[in-house]
Amino acid sequence: MKLTTLQAITLSLIAATACYSSASIPAGIVIHGGAGTIDRSKMTDEQQKNYEAVLADAVNQGYELLAAGGSSLDAVTLAVTVLEDSPLFNAGKGAVYTWDETHELDAAIMTGQDRNAGAVASVTNVKNPILLARAVMEQSEHVMLTGKGAEQFATAQKLELVNNDYFNTEFRYEALKRAKQAQQKLPHQAVIVADPNWKMGTVGAVAIDNNGNLAAATSTGGMTAKRWGRVGDVPVIGAGNFADNSSCAVSGTGHGEYFIRYNVAADICARVKYQGKSAASAGREVIQELLQAGGTGGVIIVDNKGKLSWAFNTQGMYRAKRNHSGIVVEIFADQIEKAGN
Amino acid sequence: MKLTTLQAITLSLIAATACYSSASIPAGIVIHGGAGTIDRSKMTDEQQKNYEAVLADAVNQGYELLAAGGSSLDAVTLAVTVLEDSPLFNAGKGAVYTWDETHELDAAIMTGQDRNAGAVASVTNVKNPILLARAVMEQSEHVMLTGKGAEQFATAQKLELVNNDYFNTEFRYEALKRAKQAQQKLPHQAVIVADPNWKMGTVGAVAIDNNGNLAAATSTGGMTAKRWGRVGDVPVIGAGNFADNSSCAVSGTGHGEYFIRYNVAADICARVKYQGKSAASAGREVIQELLQAGGTGGVIIVDNKGKLSWAFNTQGMYRAKRNHSGIVVEIFADQIEKAGN
Repeated sequence: MKLTTLQAITLSLIAATACYSSASIPAGIVIHGGAGTIDRSKMTDEQQKNYEAVLADAVNQGYELLAAGGSSLDAVTLAVTVLEDSPLFNAGKGAVYTWDETHELDAAIMTGQDRNAGAVASVTNVKNPILLARAVMEQSEHVMLTGKGAEQFATAQKLELVNNDYFNTEFRYEALKRAKQAQQKLPHQAVIVADPNWKMGTVGAVAIDNNGNLAAATSTGGMTAKRWGRVGDVPVIGAGNFADNSSCAVSGTGHGEYFIRYNVAADICARVKYQGKSAASAGREVIQELLQAGGTGGVIIVDNKGKLSWAFNTQGMYRAKRNHSGIVVEIFADQIEKAGN
Repeated sequence: MKLTTLQAITLSLIAATACYSSASIPAGIVIHGGAGTIDRSKMTDEQQKNYEAVLADAVNQGYELLAAGGSSLDAVTLAVTVLEDSPLFNAGKGAVYTWDETHELDAAIMTGQDRNAGAVASVTNVKNPILLARAVMEQSEHVMLTGKGAEQFATAQKLELVNNDYFNTEFRYEALKRAKQAQQKLPHQAVIVADPNWKMGTVGAVAIDNNGNLAAATSTGGMTAKRWGRVGDVPVIGAGNFADNSSCAVSGTGHGEYFIRYNVAADICARVKYQGKSAASAGREVIQELLQAGGTGGVIIVDNKGKLSWAFNTQGMYRAKRNHSGIVVEIFADQIEKAGN
């Protein structure tokens, strides 16, 4: 096949752009599996190894996809589905129980290149809610679908459906029973927030690919014993999930109500974009301000130069990152220095 | 009754603070009743007068409350309930129809002092959704409640409930029939967005009180013929509604999906806070960028010095504002210069 001059120029430009991009912007990915009270003394070595193995698996699968030239959007989607399929994290298979002893899941995804986004709230029968959020972004003109309507859309999109009891796990059911006992004392609240463990969980991934495009994905089962159709920060674009190629991509985990009120993910990006701060500094600032306001949690961030970082104000955050420098997998707060974060 | 010294000092301080505040920060309020294609040639003088009368009534009731020393939170709540109770606007009584010929309403409210917020999505039987959003903010530990759960909370809060057919109006039903006819051609979309009139609507108010506290409130019936549990920007804090005493308060109206992706309300406040821009300039910038991305709509803004402004990229926006300088009520784009905006 002979190329026209225009085709040849176009191909050269694509090649040049690819070379430039891969040389200047290192592909990378950061993931989290929730932040909260993670007591080292209460975790056995075997439990710790199990968590670390899934985190490593998720970050490695995402990074290998990036290294093979895949997009950041595909990488965060893949990493989050790995975490959703594990019973260890409060998302997908491991989702917590609602007050009514069912499971209602939320997820969101966003691309930094065009700031397109998709979010779903309160879905009960979709195996991987992150795939539904992505379908909303790519296959509808909408950003946010909820409840039964979102499930009808999932059916139309031929996504894998499951019975709600697919999400049943014994240890989450025990957590619900404890939460309900405590809740008797505060019947006017939709959920107890006194025990930080009940609101821990949420998984997420942020990545940058060889083309310099950012993406963020987040998925959660919400708060244990939630009722009244409570929706947290995950499907609220700008609160728990945000991506903008002009600054950074962020996925959050923590006390959702504070993440919404403080517009956490978008505020980190705004400080980078408008104040010229590093993404790591902006992340630390916002998470510190969140704590001062009474909110606990953490974020993972990748900026548009490929710098990976995280910040959290809790005892621990399940987390991992990988780029050309290698892989880091951590759980506790006192490990944060080792990462040179 | 004799005063103790401490009581006397306290009273003096309160009086001094009140004088200082009212002298330096003028109380003010801005409202909107939706932005979109508003064709002057298709509006009779009587119709125009009807719209202007409700806008004037809402802004006057809100301002009189502020002038009597009331809070910005009470003022925006009152102004929005006036607009919700009118059949002219797409919120409360005048809410549009869903695909299934019912009505699903969304609302959000936020205070700038403590950045507390409340939001509800897809409620069908609450006469004034803005009162439910406020109850979520003040009477629960949550920010966002949806659907049946939000309605159970409304019942528990003893809010005024109505049958869904309370929201029926003949002219909205005609709009639904036209939307459905067009929709047959695009069955994969949850709603048609080709006709700007179908997504026009939403009401809102922003205000500053004598204490310098900001508040924002927004309420909508959503998009005509919406399905799949579509949620727009209104209950997404940071997208269609935001308030922060360190910058400004914003209420938006327009193509909700773009308002979510561009984090419109919070981005305007971020430019004021981090770039030192005037609220009016920040509003114009963001609304211009929104248009470049393909999104239509508008915003009303009050900054923390009491400056009132608005910006929109459509043919018109139902709007009014009032402070010590007087009242302005406008509908069409070509009126905007008159306001000295």
